[in-house]
Amino acid sequence: MAETVRIERDFIGELSIPASAYYGIQTMRAVDNFPITGVPIEKELIFALAAVKKAAAMANMDMKMLPPRIGEVIIKAAEEVMQGQLLDQFIVDSIQGGAGTSINMNMNEVLANRGLELLSKVKGDYFHCNPNNHVNMSQSTNDAIPTALRIAAYRHAATLLQTMEQLHEGFVQKQVEFDDVVKVGRTHLQDAVPIKLGQEFGAYAKVLSRDMERLQEASKRLLSINMGATAVGTGLNAKTAYIQKVTEYLGEITGLPLYTAEDLVDATQNTDAYLEMSAALKVCAVNMSKICNDIRLMASGPRAGFSELLLPARQPGSSIMPGKVNPVMVEVMNQISFQVIGNDHTIALACGAGQFELNVMGPVIAFNLLQSLKIMNNGMDVFHRFAIKELDANRDHIKRVLDQSFTMITALNPHLGYDVAAGIVKEALRTKQTITSIILERGLLTIEELQEIMHPEQMTTPGIAGERFLHMG
Amino acid sequence: MAETVRIERDFIGELSIPASAYYGIQTMRAVDNFPITGVPIEKELIFALAAVKKAAAMANMDMKMLPPRIGEVIIKAAEEVMQGQLLDQFIVDSIQGGAGTSINMNMNEVLANRGLELLSKVKGDYFHCNPNNHVNMSQSTNDAIPTALRIAAYRHAATLLQTMEQLHEGFVQKQVEFDDVVKVGRTHLQDAVPIKLGQEFGAYAKVLSRDMERLQEASKRLLSINMGATAVGTGLNAKTAYIQKVTEYLGEITGLPLYTAEDLVDATQNTDAYLEMSAALKVCAVNMSKICNDIRLMASGPRAGFSELLLPARQPGSSIMPGKVNPVMVEVMNQISFQVIGNDHTIALACGAGQFELNVMGPVIAFNLLQSLKIMNNGMDVFHRFAIKELDANRDHIKRVLDQSFTMITALNPHLGYDVAAGIVKEALRTKQTITSIILERGLLTIEELQEIMHPEQMTTPGIAGERFLHMG
Amino acid sequence: MAETVRIERDFIGELSIPASAYYGIQTMRAVDNFPITGVPIEKELIFALAAVKKAAAMANMDMKMLPPRIGEVIIKAAEEVMQGQLLDQFIVDSIQGGAGTSINMNMNEVLANRGLELLSKVKGDYFHCNPNNHVNMSQSTNDAIPTALRIAAYRHAATLLQTMEQLHEGFVQKQVEFDDVVKVGRTHLQDAVPIKLGQEFGAYAKVLSRDMERLQEASKRLLSINMGATAVGTGLNAKTAYIQKVTEYLGEITGLPLYTAEDLVDATQNTDAYLEMSAALKVCAVNMSKICNDIRLMASGPRAGFSELLLPARQPGSSIMPGKVNPVMVEVMNQISFQVIGNDHTIALACGAGQFELNVMGPVIAFNLLQSLKIMNNGMDVFHRFAIKELDANRDHIKRVLDQSFTMITALNPHLGYDVAAGIVKEALRTKQTITSIILERGLLTIEELQEIMHPEQMTTPGIAGERFLHMG
Amino acid sequence: MAETVRIERDFIGELSIPASAYYGIQTMRAVDNFPITGVPIEKELIFALAAVKKAAAMANMDMKMLPPRIGEVIIKAAEEVMQGQLLDQFIVDSIQGGAGTSINMNMNEVLANRGLELLSKVKGDYFHCNPNNHVNMSQSTNDAIPTALRIAAYRHAATLLQTMEQLHEGFVQKQVEFDDVVKVGRTHLQDAVPIKLGQEFGAYAKVLSRDMERLQEASKRLLSINMGATAVGTGLNAKTAYIQKVTEYLGEITGLPLYTAEDLVDATQNTDAYLEMSAALKVCAVNMSKICNDIRLMASGPRAGFSELLLPARQPGSSIMPGKVNPVMVEVMNQISFQVIGNDHTIALACGAGQFELNVMGPVIAFNLLQSLKIMNNGMDVFHRFAIKELDANRDHIKRVLDQSFTMITALNPHLGYDVAAGIVKEALRTKQTITSIILERGLLTIEELQEIMHPEQMTTPGIAGERFLHMG
Repeated sequence: MAETVRIERDFIGELSIPASAYYGIQTMRAVDNFPITGVPIEKELIFALAAVKKAAAMANMDMKMLPPRIGEVIIKAAEEVMQGQLLDQFIVDSIQGGAGTSINMNMNEVLANRGLELLSKVKGDYFHCNPNNHVNMSQSTNDAIPTALRIAAYRHAATLLQTMEQLHEGFVQKQVEFDDVVKVGRTHLQDAVPIKLGQEFGAYAKVLSRDMERLQEASKRLLSINMGATAVGTGLNAKTAYIQKVTEYLGEITGLPLYTAEDLVDATQNTDAYLEMSAALKVCAVNMSKICNDIRLMASGPRAGFSELLLPARQPGSSIMPGKVNPVMVEVMNQISFQVIGNDHTIALACGAGQFELNVMGPVIAFNLLQSLKIMNNGMDVFHRFAIKELDANRDHIKRVLDQSFTMITALNPHLGYDVAAGIVKEALRTKQTITSIILERGLLTIEELQEIMHPEQMTTPGIAGERFLHMG
Repeated sequence: MAETVRIERDFIGELSIPASAYYGIQTMRAVDNFPITGVPIEKELIFALAAVKKAAAMANMDMKMLPPRIGEVIIKAAEEVMQGQLLDQFIVDSIQGGAGTSINMNMNEVLANRGLELLSKVKGDYFHCNPNNHVNMSQSTNDAIPTALRIAAYRHAATLLQTMEQLHEGFVQKQVEFDDVVKVGRTHLQDAVPIKLGQEFGAYAKVLSRDMERLQEASKRLLSINMGATAVGTGLNAKTAYIQKVTEYLGEITGLPLYTAEDLVDATQNTDAYLEMSAALKVCAVNMSKICNDIRLMASGPRAGFSELLLPARQPGSSIMPGKVNPVMVEVMNQISFQVIGNDHTIALACGAGQFELNVMGPVIAFNLLQSLKIMNNGMDVFHRFAIKELDANRDHIKRVLDQSFTMITALNPHLGYDVAAGIVKEALRTKQTITSIILERGLLTIEELQEIMHPEQMTTPGIAGERFLHMG
Repeated sequence: MAETVRIERDFIGELSIPASAYYGIQTMRAVDNFPITGVPIEKELIFALAAVKKAAAMANMDMKMLPPRIGEVIIKAAEEVMQGQLLDQFIVDSIQGGAGTSINMNMNEVLANRGLELLSKVKGDYFHCNPNNHVNMSQSTNDAIPTALRIAAYRHAATLLQTMEQLHEGFVQKQVEFDDVVKVGRTHLQDAVPIKLGQEFGAYAKVLSRDMERLQEASKRLLSINMGATAVGTGLNAKTAYIQKVTEYLGEITGLPLYTAEDLVDATQNTDAYLEMSAALKVCAVNMSKICNDIRLMASGPRAGFSELLLPARQPGSSIMPGKVNPVMVEVMNQISFQVIGNDHTIALACGAGQFELNVMGPVIAFNLLQSLKIMNNGMDVFHRFAIKELDANRDHIKRVLDQSFTMITALNPHLGYDVAAGIVKEALRTKQTITSIILERGLLTIEELQEIMHPEQMTTPGIAGERFLHMG
Repeated sequence: MAETVRIERDFIGELSIPASAYYGIQTMRAVDNFPITGVPIEKELIFALAAVKKAAAMANMDMKMLPPRIGEVIIKAAEEVMQGQLLDQFIVDSIQGGAGTSINMNMNEVLANRGLELLSKVKGDYFHCNPNNHVNMSQSTNDAIPTALRIAAYRHAATLLQTMEQLHEGFVQKQVEFDDVVKVGRTHLQDAVPIKLGQEFGAYAKVLSRDMERLQEASKRLLSINMGATAVGTGLNAKTAYIQKVTEYLGEITGLPLYTAEDLVDATQNTDAYLEMSAALKVCAVNMSKICNDIRLMASGPRAGFSELLLPARQPGSSIMPGKVNPVMVEVMNQISFQVIGNDHTIALACGAGQFELNVMGPVIAFNLLQSLKIMNNGMDVFHRFAIKELDANRDHIKRVLDQSFTMITALNPHLGYDVAAGIVKEALRTKQTITSIILERGLLTIEELQEIMHPEQMTTPGIAGERFLHMG
């Protein structure tokens, strides 16, 4: 049995729509036109757009532009969507031409038809509740969609910031826990001078805290919205009082301190706020990737690696090598970082492709920015819970390696000079003698002096070891 | 009522699995560990991996390693998956740690449990058909997954090449159709010398044909697979005869001329073949983006633009501006290009992160490479059908603009010299006279000479116009 | 005649150095090892590094570590370099292995030998003034070089900010100058609704002001330096009092509010401050590229383009087409933007390659960051002076095109509804009638209503045209 | 005393030129307009452009277009430039607006003035030898510059291919030299199964050989040139016979098998050949970066690292840590890789910015492509000579670590099954027993069986160890 359909028309022609569908002809055209990724629009963006529609209806009613009867059903329908209903009606693809017109019209049509239903009218009977004239009243895709994206990105960022806070706390806990673990510090992957494992985790915490600052700074700029800009930012067909009202209402609905952009023409054509946020995420991704590389290296082994860290076993590591456990939670964080960096590239290309009054590449910007925020959040969450929380130090091994190393030679510089010290290392490597035995043999320092100078823990804080023995020129 | 479960164990511990599930404990662990993108593994990769499992089972049976009773049910189960069954059992995320171990084990577990079912055994009773010992026999994630990815990418590329062929044909048709449309050629966005609209589409066809060549070249390298490499490419636990057999069978099953890589250690650790293909896609994306920019510019208007091309109207262009039609099919192609270029960046980062015997970033490589291939194919298909096929030239407008332009001045160079000609243009711009009237006024050339020299169509092919009048130094 | 040489030794062996050279053996080794780009180290970095050496010498003298006799000649030599002397002695390549050790030692050797000269000693007689023990006292490459880079980048950024300020002012001037030029606004490159040319330049000014904010924010983080961190951030061999003093002196010498990083281990291993600045530059580059694209499009023509802007003629545009003038100053700004974006990619890769206590990829970071800052500054300066300052609007043409356009139809939405208005546009395009004649013919509005509603200048500010005629539902 | 000057004029106005200068007014304008990078045009590009001018003069003389007297001095002047003379006369910046018009005119002016000198005429007296009418005859910047760039890039690539061949040979030598060094293979940075160090270097050689193939393929496309395309590819003002001749002569002069592009419109507007070559370089850079990372890791230590490789000491590694030697030659190769990858990004942006008949971003493409080719060549050369050639294996340490590892457990899979084997590893890690003692204790295998199965060297080739003991199901 064939599905019942209704016919809808626009200035291009007519199409059959499933009778039960809340979406309409423009959604159908978009579905035909853009069968690209198969990935639906990010939910958070749909919620934010519904909030935009609710706020606009409220402001339009205040303006006496929108009849209350119609306004009320639009508001009701928008609230339903904000609560997660009707999500299956948003069927346009994440990557679409038209600067978001298709997702905007998908929303306009769904709310109009749900509104009609609430008015006990037949779907498609747009005289009583029209997608363009009523739901989209005083709006354009060019203000509604950027505003929704800003809200969605802000919210995703807020969630991410909470997760970052937890990961930060996780690093700080390890900083404290590993404060007594003195190890070989490495520069150029070569043994350098002693450092505490705790200091390393402290540095991870610190760089992450800067990432949080950057993300917060970038978030702030998202609060500036362009509702009322309409098509090109000039505010054509939007009353000044409406512009004030719609922003006010939207702030109340979302609980965010939104405000109207100072220059609506600028706010409509420029997408730098998204790119700035993506760039902040990229910097964070680069930092996380460095941290993950360090951790994977420190956890390398168990026999032929650095073996300084013991990661919790999360899953068997190999389909062929029995008993192998891999740093999978760290690897996934690395991969997320790569994805975020690549997404930033896509976003930069799209932002650079704006022309005149509009950047029509909004959909691919939204797709990548929201994905980056989401996967960064998801990744950091499991990375924190499944990798960092139960991370252990391989203390015995760390100490054994430190004791065998030459890392304490640098403390001798002020006493012996760089060249003499360098010669001692060279001889130690050649003769397999210890550094101390060479020094004592040559009578360069006494055993007491050596003990005071070559003290690993002391070498992890500023100061010149054995300063009182120092003979200055 | 609580769902029935079964308990599975591995060397890390035990977990409850839904009794009806074909996947098992390692899949469950991966689902817990990697709630990242929400995007499931690309179908084509699952089909290819099932083919790998079938081929391995056949080769293992030949080797007398795998009992026929078990081998046969594995083959049957693999065939079912290859036909699109059980797809809902592949529940691990596209971005996952572990170099693909989780998707490999997801497949091993699904085939084992489906195999058990076919043997009338209880799911989870792995003694009779074991994910590791039987389904994964003679394999490692490190050969099975790269091989599957190569097959999936090759097939996607083959589909894309067909679509490119059609788009190429579309450009060639426009080259023919617009062969008589002489227009103002532009360099630096400034009016230059005459060119045919057909020549422009010819150039689009030509660069696309090179993109096809590059993609074909990159495809070829994907046919070299590393089945039998096992963990690190040394072939441990894989008999030489097995290596030959499994590749042979896999070639038969897929219909592709697959062959064993010359150096399995190399083939296991290096991912340059993916990056090469992604780079070929990126070059293509850059070219497509340029073509799309040209077309959008030529279609700009209707009154305040170049107005040379008329794109078919695919959907209303604005939620606020009535009657507006936008070049949405071209814009979506631009966005796809940006995505592909960004994906290439992610892939490059992931490929560069390989270490020693393996690149563990395979999942994010697969995710991006297969997405790039897919969206490029989907995009080119609709771009061809909905934008290029019914594209029209705005012939009258093109001619009118050409006639008003100074583009014919360059043909006078050989007759008047560059400096004199430049002076004429400058005066024409200043006085709003035509070029010809200035030349005639000054008596530089006769009207007959001018008519022969300044002939737009003739200026679109090599040669010196009015050569017979030429007086050389 | 062979050049006179001196022999120098280090723990690797010995080398001949030109007797007249101020650099020494480690510089020579670096020259042999790294014949890569042929591009010398950026001057600003050399100046900053000399300042670091001066500050360190002062602090070391305060600490009674460095004998005044030696300290004074080091200070004197450093001051000479800061004044631009001895620049030909800095001969190591911009891209070098070793995290900057080579440029640090190049500086140490030049100052030591110039110091020896001032002490009337022979070059190479390092007993009296030693590159490592004296010039590099209490320092490591790992604190001296990052500190110098931060200072150099900060200064370059300060210069750039001044140039941006001028360009911003240039845009604002055009905003004012073009405030009365109403034109066809464009979205999707399609005629949209009226906008003022001044509003467009206002938007350029506005986005640039955000770029300046971002650059300032990024600059601030550069003021946190890690002098005293020595090798890995633990401060080994640097007294606490020295750390305070050296930062204080360096602040005085450079006139910058430098301060010691809160966590020196973090400050030594993490390079996010550079990447953050590069990311800010990249966002700016993307914005500039968009602006340049707009300007080049608006200046396209003179006959077959948009012809809205008239750029000053800076040079003949073609070696073959007489009288052609190209937007070369805008094109160069586009290219600079591409370079800056690509450099950001290099910097991100390098920053992500840090390992443990150090990022050894500092040289390539410095090379790209300083180049980006420099070319952005140079480009914006000439772009402002040679393209924006004398930019003119092609007022007659702009008005003519506006009058022919349908851009005023959107103002009719509140009066006629979207669908009716869309139908009118469609008919106007088909029949080549004007919009007004169709409306009047159909009796939809009176001539008085139309005149009030369709008023282009009024359409460039918020509000509903002809609101008093509005009949609401 | 003021320098003597001459006055030159063009259609924009007049300028003073140093009387001794070979360049002229257009060069001067470009110097004023583009003070961007300070980096001069790459020499190889100047040589190639001079060759283009020589070939054009020869062809123009054949056509009887260019008087022999003038043609001969142009040819003579071009030859001088090709031999490295007058290089200081090429003073325009590497990044310039105008698609290369400035460097083309710089060349035209230098050859014209040197030609005038050879004719015993005064510089600037262009009647007797004119930069545009004579030197640039039958050419446009739009064919001359792309042709020169293709030749320059081809030649650079040829040099690079030779260096790659040497590095490849270097890897192969290490493959042979380290064929008897069995070590712990690593996946996920975790100990996996045994592999030969020689096999690893074999894999490096192999991937590099594919890089060479890719570069060769990309090189081939550069041989297709567009001389005779003139302004937009239509060949206006270029005779068909000239097109054939100029390509022929250029092939002879350069010794390269150059040919005329099939479609000159395509060849003039599309830049994919450069991007393809850059992409090939990028793939190579990614591979080199991976190899360098491996080598730096294997050389990490001496006490707290992997310590498998011993790199030759090239320079003291630290200004503070005595005796430290760093892998500087490997680090520089990493940095070069980052630069090449970033440059590829710049090139992609520039290539995507082509519009209509021309890509005006040629200068930044040339700057980056030629730099990438050059630094890759320089880097690989020193990497090969200073890092790979004298690389040693730390054989004792490698063996000791292998003996302590569990890497041989995988060979037991076919005998014991994956689960039993996994349990043994887990117990060995817990109890610190050896694997063999557990197996023997449990009576799972005999000592003879174990000795045959767990044989590291044998595990580095395909096959099932101890197959004759195998009991199959």
